[in-house]
Amino acid sequence: MRGKRVKAKIHVTLKQGILDPQGKAIEQALATLGYTSARNVRVGKYLELDLNEPKDKAEAQVKAMCEKLLANTIIEDYRYELS
Amino acid sequence: MRGKRVKAKIHVTLKQGILDPQGKAIEQALATLGYTSARNVRVGKYLELDLNEPKDKAEAQVKAMCEKLLANTIIEDYRYELS
Repeated sequence: MRGKRVKAKIHVTLKQGILDPQGKAIEQALATLGYTSARNVRVGKYLELDLNEPKDKAEAQVKAMCEKLLANTIIEDYRYELS
Repeated sequence: MRGKRVKAKIHVTLKQGILDPQGKAIEQALATLGYTSARNVRVGKYLELDLNEPKDKAEAQVKAMCEKLLANTIIEDYRYELS
């Protein structure tokens, strides 16, 4: 086995100011269930993946994956942690 | 205004052993882009919401929201942080 296994945890969230219809729908569903004090519900994606690369190379790859595939950087922000 | 604003950050992820077709699709797409060392891609949801409640009450509410609406506890795990 070449390289060490690196675990990446990636959050992809809508940028501030971008409308979140899924979040609004959940907010209304929560209100229907009686949770009327829930506000500003925002929904994003959370991804985990393993990479068989040294940590510095893994970081560059995860950044590139986010830019190219995992996030739509026009409307979404992303952040990641490696461990 | 009654209560203090509490921010909840909620992760909903598929339980271990549950098949993740969306993760598999992303894994294949990453391989197509040349990221062939990415493995075990798992996709979950990440939610943020504000609650106008004292922290202890907010915690009970977030737990109940997860159980009733946000997670399907048959196949999904959830965890949350309050701040």
